[in-house]
Amino acid sequence: MRTRPLKVALLGCGVVGSEVARIMTTHADDLAARIGAPVELAGVAVRRPSKVREGIDPALVTTDATALVKRGDIDVVVEVIGGIEPARTLITTAFEHGASVVSANKALLAQDGAALHAAAGQHGKDLYYEAAVAGAIPLIRPLRESLAGDKVNRVLGIVNGTTNFILDKMDSTGAGYQEALDEATALGYAEADPTADVEGFDAAAKAAILAGIAFHTRVRLDDVYREGMTEVTAADFRSATEMGCTIKLLAICERARDGASVTARVHPAMIPLSHPLASVRGAYNAVFVESDAAGQLMFYGPGAGGSPTASAVLGDLVAVCRNRLNGTTGPGESAYADLTVSSMGEVVTRYHISLDVADKPGVLAQVATVFAEHGVSIDTVRQQGKDGEASLVVVTHRASDASLTGTVEALRKLDTVRGVASIMRVEGE
Amino acid sequence: MRTRPLKVALLGCGVVGSEVARIMTTHADDLAARIGAPVELAGVAVRRPSKVREGIDPALVTTDATALVKRGDIDVVVEVIGGIEPARTLITTAFEHGASVVSANKALLAQDGAALHAAAGQHGKDLYYEAAVAGAIPLIRPLRESLAGDKVNRVLGIVNGTTNFILDKMDSTGAGYQEALDEATALGYAEADPTADVEGFDAAAKAAILAGIAFHTRVRLDDVYREGMTEVTAADFRSATEMGCTIKLLAICERARDGASVTARVHPAMIPLSHPLASVRGAYNAVFVESDAAGQLMFYGPGAGGSPTASAVLGDLVAVCRNRLNGTTGPGESAYADLTVSSMGEVVTRYHISLDVADKPGVLAQVATVFAEHGVSIDTVRQQGKDGEASLVVVTHRASDASLTGTVEALRKLDTVRGVASIMRVEGE
Ligand SMILES: NC(=O)c1ccc[n+]([C@@H]2O[C@H](COP(=O)([O-])OP(=O)(O)OC[C@H]3O[C@@H](n4cnc5c(N)ncnc54)[C@H](OP(=O)(O)O)[C@@H]3O)[C@@H](O)[C@H]2O)c1
Ligand SMILES: NC(=O)c1ccc[n+]([C@@H]2O[C@H](COP(=O)([O-])OP(=O)(O)OC[C@H]3O[C@@H](n4cnc5c(N)ncnc54)[C@H](OP(=O)(O)O)[C@@H]3O)[C@@H](O)[C@H]2O)c1
Repeated sequence: MRTRPLKVALLGCGVVGSEVARIMTTHADDLAARIGAPVELAGVAVRRPSKVREGIDPALVTTDATALVKRGDIDVVVEVIGGIEPARTLITTAFEHGASVVSANKALLAQDGAALHAAAGQHGKDLYYEAAVAGAIPLIRPLRESLAGDKVNRVLGIVNGTTNFILDKMDSTGAGYQEALDEATALGYAEADPTADVEGFDAAAKAAILAGIAFHTRVRLDDVYREGMTEVTAADFRSATEMGCTIKLLAICERARDGASVTARVHPAMIPLSHPLASVRGAYNAVFVESDAAGQLMFYGPGAGGSPTASAVLGDLVAVCRNRLNGTTGPGESAYADLTVSSMGEVVTRYHISLDVADKPGVLAQVATVFAEHGVSIDTVRQQGKDGEASLVVVTHRASDASLTGTVEALRKLDTVRGVASIMRVEGE
Repeated sequence: MRTRPLKVALLGCGVVGSEVARIMTTHADDLAARIGAPVELAGVAVRRPSKVREGIDPALVTTDATALVKRGDIDVVVEVIGGIEPARTLITTAFEHGASVVSANKALLAQDGAALHAAAGQHGKDLYYEAAVAGAIPLIRPLRESLAGDKVNRVLGIVNGTTNFILDKMDSTGAGYQEALDEATALGYAEADPTADVEGFDAAAKAAILAGIAFHTRVRLDDVYREGMTEVTAADFRSATEMGCTIKLLAICERARDGASVTARVHPAMIPLSHPLASVRGAYNAVFVESDAAGQLMFYGPGAGGSPTASAVLGDLVAVCRNRLNGTTGPGESAYADLTVSSMGEVVTRYHISLDVADKPGVLAQVATVFAEHGVSIDTVRQQGKDGEASLVVVTHRASDASLTGTVEALRKLDTVRGVASIMRVEGE
C-alpha cells in the first residue's frame, strides 16, 4: 500500500458534507485498505467559518473555496455545496488544477453536465456523481457499467422522497395536498420552500441525468417535460383506488417503440397497486429499469439524507482514488447514440380523465365523438349523476399526448362539459 | 476509437453463451462505441461441434477449448461452461496466456475464488463475475464499488429462482412441496435433477461469494451453513400465515453485532409479509443490503435465464475491455478485513417451533422449563388440543442457534413431547 495519502478537498460541510467528513475519519483504515492508499482531508470550504463543526479540525476550514481547489496538491475535490454557482466554477477550476471531482449536485449536472464532462475529459480527470440521483441507491454506476452491454428501453422511478412522502400520506390517510405537505414540513421531510420538490424540478433534473446515461444521448433539462404534484387531490386518490391504482410522482425516461427517439418527463401518474413502485412508502426512492436482455430490474433505498448520500459520495471517492492510483479514469460521458429527444406530445400512454358534465341525455355520445375525432380510443367510461350535475370518468387506451391535449381542448368547448376536473396519466401497466 | 478489435473467446455456447454471442453480434456497434474499440468473437468452444448454432459462424466453433485460450491473441475469455473442471484450468490457462476473464460460474467462484483471484492478480488480469450471483441484477459491482466507502452489515436475499418459484406456488395455492416442484419442472423452472437448487447448494455458493465481497473477508463454501427447502410443508405455510409471514429460502450474510465476526447461511425462513422480500414472486430474485451509512437498499430482478445472465456477462465484458484499453485492471479480491467466519451455532435469530405433545396438564410448564434452562426466552406460545393429542407452537425471542439446538435436543427427550414437527427461523423483522 502506498503510504503517501491522497488529498481530498471538501467543498461544503452541511447535511451531506459533514457526513462525508465523519465517515472519512471513522472509516479511515477501511478506506485506505480498499483504495490502496490513505485519504487525507486536506481542506473544508464553507460559508460560515465560525460555525462549530464536530470532528472537523478548525485549521482545515476556509471560506476561500477557490484557493482550496487551486492549491495544486489536491487529488479529489468533493463538491457538496449545491446550486449552480460557485459550484460550477469551482469544479472547472479543480479540473484545471489537476483534481478529479465527486459531486452530489443534480441541479448543476442536469444543467451543465455536458460542459463539465468536456472539461473533465480535456484535463484527463474523473467526474463522478452517483449521489446526485436517488441518494444512496446505486443507479448511475449500474446504468453506466453493469448495463453497458445491454439496451435500456425505459427508466421509471420515484426519485423524490419529499413528494413520495406527501403522496403516501394522502393515499393512506385521505388527507389533501396542503395537510400532507404541512405534516411533511413538520417532520423535516419538506423544506421551508418546497417548490423544487413539489413542482418536480428536482425530479426533472434527475430524469435528465438518468435519460442521458441510459440512452447514451445528451438530454438537457429543458428537454424534460415537468408537471408538479400540487394539483393532486384527495378525489384523484379516490379515483385511483377505484381503478386499483395509487398515485406517484414519476420520472419516466423512455425510448420510443421505433427505437429512434427518446423522451423524458416528470408528472404524477396512476400506477397499479400490483406494480412494485406502488408499495414504495414514505420518503424512499425506487427506480425500475427495463432493458432488452436483463428485463426488469428495480433498485430501492433511501433517496436522500446526509448519511445515505454520503455513502454514495464515498463510493465514488473510492473509485476516483483507485483510478488515480492506476493512472486512469473511469468511463466518462457517453453520448454517442445522439438520439432525438422528442417533446411531450409524442409520448404515448393511457389517461384517466374526470369531466364535470350536464346530466342530460346525449352527453356521453358527444364526449365519445370528440375522443374518436382525435383518434383517442376509449377503454372504459363511468357515469355518475345527481341533481342535474354529473361526472364522467374516461380511461383511454394508449394515445399520444398531443392527441390527448387536442381532445381535452375540444372537450372544454362543449356546452355540456362544465369542466375538466382532472387528467392523470396511467403508467406501469 | 481504436479500429483493431479486442478478441473474445467464448467458452460454452449453451443457455447463456448463445445469448452472449447473439448480443455481441446484434449490438456490435453499441458495444464498440461504449468500449472505444470493436469486439470480435474469435472462437467458441463447445462439447458437441456438429450442433447447429444459429448466428454462429461454424468456422469459429471448436471442441479444443484449451487451444483456444492458449492462442495468445485473445483479450478476454468468457467462461460460460459451468462446473469445476475444465472451467478452472481453462481460466487459469487464460490468465497465463494474457487474457482477462469474465465468468458466470458461481460453483467455481465459491469453491476456488481465492486461487483464481490470485492467478488473475499474478498475471495482472481482470476476473469479473457479476452474472454468477442473481443473474441480471447488479449486485457484485454495487457491493464492490458503490458501497466501497460504506460498511455493509447484512446481505439478505432470495438468490435462487427455482426455489422461490416453488415456495411462491406453495404459498399461493396451498400445494405441497412435491406438487409445486412438479409444476416448476413442467414449466422449465426446475432442472430434471433439482438437487443443487432445492438443497440450497446453488444459494450457498452465491452466499459465499456475496459474504466475501460484502465483508472483505474470504468466505469458503464450507463456511456457509446450508439447509434446503425440501422439508417445508403446507402446514408450515399455514403457521406462517397465522404469524403474518410467508416462507422464503434466504441467503443471509451477517456481521455479528460486535463487528468482529461474520456468518453466512442458507435456509428456509419465515419473513413478515410487510418485508419487501415477501412480495418477490415466481422465479425473481431480490437482495436486501444493509449498511451503516446507506441504510437499507434492495436490488430486484430476474435471477437467471439466458438473456438476463448474458446482460450481466456483457456488462462485465465492456468493463474488462475498457480496463484493457486503459492498460489497467478493476478492483480485484478484497479480503483485507480477514474477519472470523463463525459457525451456525453463533447465529442469533428468532425461531418458530411446532411440537406434537401429549394433551395433559403440566406439559406447557415442562416445555417452558426446557427453554428457560437453555437461555432461550419465549415470545409467544399457542396450544391446540384434540383427542389426547395436542400441538404447541412456540415463537422465541432472539437466541443463538446453539442454544436453540440444545433446547430442541432436550425437548425431544421429554416423554410428553411426541415429536418436533418443524423448526423454522424467523427473519427480516
Ligand atoms: N441533503 C440531501 O439529502 C441530499 C441528497 C442528495 C443530494 N444532495 C445534494 O448535495 C449537495 C449538498 O446538499 P446539503 O443538503 O448538504 O446542503 P447544505 O446542508 O445546505 O450544505 C451546503 C454547504 O455548502 C456550504 N456553502 C454554501 N455556499 C458556499 C460557498 N459559496 N462556498 C463554500 N461553501 C459554501 C455551506 O456552508 P455553511 O455550513 O457555512 O452554511 C454548507 O456547509 C446539494 O447539491 C444537494 O442537491 C443532498
Ligand atoms: N442458465 C442460467 O440461467 C444461468 C444463470 C446464471 C449463471 N449461469 C451459469 O452460467 C454457466 C453456463 O450455464 P448454461 O445454463 O449456459 O449451461 P449450458 O446451457 O449447459 O451450456 C454449457 C455450454 O458449455 C459447453 N461445454 C460443456 N462442457 C464443455 C467442455 N468440456 N468444453 C467446451 N465446452 C463445453 C456446452 O457445449 P454443448 O453446447 O456442445 O453442449 C454448452 O455450450 C454456468 O456456470 C451456470 O451456473 C447460468
